[in-house]
Amino acid sequence: MNVLYKIRSSADVKALSDEELDLLASDIREYLISSVSQTGGHLASNLGIVELTIALHRVYDTSRDRVVFDVGHQCYVHKMLTGRWKEFPTLRQYGGLSGFPKPYESNDDAFIAGHASNSVSVAVGMAKARSALREDYQVVALLGDGALTGGLAYEGLSAAGSSREPMVIILNDNTMSIAPNVGGIASLLQNLRIRPGYIHFKKAYREFLKGLPSVYYYTHELKEKLKDRLLPSNTFSAMGLNYIGPVDGHNRKELEFVLRLAREMNEPVLVHVLTKKGKGCSFAETNPELFHGLGPFDPVTGRIPESSDSYSDVFGRELCSLADQDGRIMAISAAMSLGTGLSAFSERFPDRFCDVGIAEGHACSMAAGMAKQGLIPVFAVYSSFLQRGFDMMIHDIGLQGLHVVLCVDRAGIVGGDGETHHGIFDVSYLRTVPGMKIFAPASFRELSQMLDKAVMHVQEPVAVRYPRGGECGWAGVCTAREAVIREGEDVTVVAYGAMLSEALRAADVLMEKGISAEIIKLSELDGNDYPLVMESLQKTHRLLSAEEVCAAGCLGFVLAESAAEKGISFRAVSLNLGEGVIPHGDRHQLMRDFGIDGDAMVQAACQLVNRSINE
Amino acid sequence: MNVLYKIRSSADVKALSDEELDLLASDIREYLISSVSQTGGHLASNLGIVELTIALHRVYDTSRDRVVFDVGHQCYVHKMLTGRWKEFPTLRQYGGLSGFPKPYESNDDAFIAGHASNSVSVAVGMAKARSALREDYQVVALLGDGALTGGLAYEGLSAAGSSREPMVIILNDNTMSIAPNVGGIASLLQNLRIRPGYIHFKKAYREFLKGLPSVYYYTHELKEKLKDRLLPSNTFSAMGLNYIGPVDGHNRKELEFVLRLAREMNEPVLVHVLTKKGKGCSFAETNPELFHGLGPFDPVTGRIPESSDSYSDVFGRELCSLADQDGRIMAISAAMSLGTGLSAFSERFPDRFCDVGIAEGHACSMAAGMAKQGLIPVFAVYSSFLQRGFDMMIHDIGLQGLHVVLCVDRAGIVGGDGETHHGIFDVSYLRTVPGMKIFAPASFRELSQMLDKAVMHVQEPVAVRYPRGGECGWAGVCTAREAVIREGEDVTVVAYGAMLSEALRAADVLMEKGISAEIIKLSELDGNDYPLVMESLQKTHRLLSAEEVCAAGCLGFVLAESAAEKGISFRAVSLNLGEGVIPHGDRHQLMRDFGIDGDAMVQAACQLVNRSINE
Repeated sequence: MNVLYKIRSSADVKALSDEELDLLASDIREYLISSVSQTGGHLASNLGIVELTIALHRVYDTSRDRVVFDVGHQCYVHKMLTGRWKEFPTLRQYGGLSGFPKPYESNDDAFIAGHASNSVSVAVGMAKARSALREDYQVVALLGDGALTGGLAYEGLSAAGSSREPMVIILNDNTMSIAPNVGGIASLLQNLRIRPGYIHFKKAYREFLKGLPSVYYYTHELKEKLKDRLLPSNTFSAMGLNYIGPVDGHNRKELEFVLRLAREMNEPVLVHVLTKKGKGCSFAETNPELFHGLGPFDPVTGRIPESSDSYSDVFGRELCSLADQDGRIMAISAAMSLGTGLSAFSERFPDRFCDVGIAEGHACSMAAGMAKQGLIPVFAVYSSFLQRGFDMMIHDIGLQGLHVVLCVDRAGIVGGDGETHHGIFDVSYLRTVPGMKIFAPASFRELSQMLDKAVMHVQEPVAVRYPRGGECGWAGVCTAREAVIREGEDVTVVAYGAMLSEALRAADVLMEKGISAEIIKLSELDGNDYPLVMESLQKTHRLLSAEEVCAAGCLGFVLAESAAEKGISFRAVSLNLGEGVIPHGDRHQLMRDFGIDGDAMVQAACQLVNRSINE
Repeated sequence: MNVLYKIRSSADVKALSDEELDLLASDIREYLISSVSQTGGHLASNLGIVELTIALHRVYDTSRDRVVFDVGHQCYVHKMLTGRWKEFPTLRQYGGLSGFPKPYESNDDAFIAGHASNSVSVAVGMAKARSALREDYQVVALLGDGALTGGLAYEGLSAAGSSREPMVIILNDNTMSIAPNVGGIASLLQNLRIRPGYIHFKKAYREFLKGLPSVYYYTHELKEKLKDRLLPSNTFSAMGLNYIGPVDGHNRKELEFVLRLAREMNEPVLVHVLTKKGKGCSFAETNPELFHGLGPFDPVTGRIPESSDSYSDVFGRELCSLADQDGRIMAISAAMSLGTGLSAFSERFPDRFCDVGIAEGHACSMAAGMAKQGLIPVFAVYSSFLQRGFDMMIHDIGLQGLHVVLCVDRAGIVGGDGETHHGIFDVSYLRTVPGMKIFAPASFRELSQMLDKAVMHVQEPVAVRYPRGGECGWAGVCTAREAVIREGEDVTVVAYGAMLSEALRAADVLMEKGISAEIIKLSELDGNDYPLVMESLQKTHRLLSAEEVCAAGCLGFVLAESAAEKGISFRAVSLNLGEGVIPHGDRHQLMRDFGIDGDAMVQAACQLVNRSINE
């Protein structure tokens, strides 16, 4: 490490010589590969943004200026340059450095990030606040071309254009989001990339560069001249944004020049930057989707240890087998075909596979249209991202009772991605959708059977929710709506999905303490009708529910009201994730900390038994 | 009525002569004005779409072809032409004709509508289903320029362009949505409207029209020629859509020609139609925003009876007064400044007012950016439309605990607009947002005080929810989180917002029956901590909650679990709107039918008392 170790802020980056800046870039790449290979994390996108991030810190002061990242997994270089490089060995670990921008971690992180396409909207709000409060700082949004497939980005761009607020929107165009890009916007960008203006633009500003002093000074005349010559007309300019680009995203000097120009223009400007995902690392360049976000790997060869089977894999295989049997099945992905296990499906049934980009709302509405006309659409999506489709689920799917199948992956605590990615709100929001059936498999075989039922037998809106990764303990099959998995006398323990294993573990410990727990496993989470739980409560008079979801709308509340409605005398404890702000880290560690693991269940059960109203 | 009375289908419209078609248009306008003046409803947008709807029925068969309306309040003419004109005296009334497309009402209504910007996504799904199932029908989406301010429309257009599915997207451009249009997209459309191509286009197809037989036949060559000459390049074509327009939306022959052309092109086509809201009715043309959606009025003069004060009015006045005191307050509207009571604010504080168009998600994210940088953003929005901002509330506002004030208007049953517009999911989704405080005023004065508290004293995310219209009975002030409004011994009745009046009415009736009800009014709906309710339950052992919201996530469930956690022995009944599919009609009628009104509360209380566990 030649230079990186002495960098703590934008000011330090500004003080470097040309030679040192080049060394800095190679320091960063080396360190990225070595540290991410050990901790896992997001590699390819960060390798692609090294020069752009350095240029940002040359032009802006991120401790004052507000640089809003979109999605945010491309913030590693930024974190390295703002006093956090030493913490990279703790990346994404419990109590360690977050893999996403976090204002609580550093004032250099202007805003939270995680979900796509919101950065421009946030930046517009910040720019308006700056002007309204008569303050003096710059506002920048940094988004990828993938984020442009989300409608929210377009709402933000439209607002930025009409606001006339000075702000710079940097479009980091690496020609793919997580999966290769899709939709009309991709072809629009493709046209911009190849247009002849690119060449002329490079020539033109090289000429300018030659004649300029090292500290730029823009007269009004110069700016106008630049604008006439360099700013072509296109969709972005039609929306009121000044457009500059495309610019070579790995040429630091060009980038720095263009960013300065954009800042000096004092208007809303979109800078279109072309970068290469995985830049400078052969295996990541060759296979950017694989090296987007991953676990530890060999930093020299890029070999990735084979992962064991996951719920996503099981889903993908089962859906292929169903699709073989029924031509009405269509699979939908929102830029996550690899992550959701749909890669094989997309190859085997290319005509029956839709990748809509990062557009979960559209995916829901489109699926509703498909279902209305006789197809069986299956939308595989991460729990946390499906939040974007909430209104469409209610309005387009729910109110008409259409048979759309939502395969809700990453339900529950997801681990290293942290608070923006945990799938802990879905039980609450899915239960709110009129007529939505909700299946919660607790094993691979259950997922297969429940998917089969959801696709082939249910006639209404239906969601199947399952966790990230693989089975954790229990691997049985018991797909009845509710089922007594273990009989007991003292306390009724209700669990579903991945929590069943914790419940079983708790029951073993309780047995040793002389407390006999009856475990009831739920497979369906919709509605209020759980007669087996009620029957059990009439025996035990104690209800312990344990859920890997936020408190609002959880099943524990539903069951308690239901029991009270039936006049059962009982006492209850509902273990859940409260308000749902859960940091990153190991799932079991987080479950322990937030009091929903087997130990917490043991403790709650003991309390229930000691203080029961029937003592 | 000369012609309308004999029209029952697209086929009937096709059979009419030119002269009859003109008569039909004036029949429709006359009937629209006379019937809407009596029932209330949406006037201006329907007057603007008479010729376009007639042309649609000339070119398509809506019983087979799928015409997907966006928002849908412009469907009156379509309903008149498809066998429903006789039912207009029952428009928007309980059991009567819906003001929005409803497949349950007629197969000519292809899909539900109510919320904006989803039509293209739905149509893409339908077009894909048509092709996948090898069926043969046309798919059309009909959206207004207002819907284009929503990002979902852009996701749909992008998907339509890349799908290559034959489909026609009709952009009904009346230069305003409900409020005058805003944002980059508006200036984009403005550019299209005034470009010289419009003139040439008209000339060009007039020439074509002259030479063509009455039944058109398009050779490939002719199509290519037309495309070269008539289809200019712009944002829509960059997204892969063929663009035709703009076309005069009140020239039936031009429209019919262009729609036929678009259909024959057998590709995704966007037809840009210019219409005038309120066309043919002087007062509606002059004041289209006022005559957008309204109650009964004088059909000759256009005089609208003065309406009494509403919660929206009170909100608007109070916010102005707060804004006088604190310069950090910014008001945000999503194309609803009139409806939400923000008109006066927008005039008095134009620099502190943002109308973002129909972009609720953007509004939430922008507000988060504002709050992060020191402003106090107040977003006034209808409960049902805020569903679009669900993810942004969690991700951008909630996780960071930002002080954004959501003023959630039209909470509860809204009446005539029906199932797509009732604000009955907000308690559930707002409770799911981390850290969100929720205030529920039950009177005008309470709204003023709670708004003051939400804006000036709360430091966290906060929502204030209030109903459509005015006070209904109770007009007191009692803004404590929970308060005993009326003491009693036999049953604890919990209510909030507009339901308080029903609870008081029920208590009077119960008293006559010898049952003494303790009424606890909730003013804050967040969290689980209601000690007064718990105390009351320890006395009454009977909990009756009555809520004008869906079952999922309702307070009744929260209180029951809380009581069970405290070991209180009690019995409960939770009155609510179940799954939340509630039709249009009078609010009190709907409350009665769905069992949440005072009578239902009396009945439930009697049952509770007779069957109580403590008898």
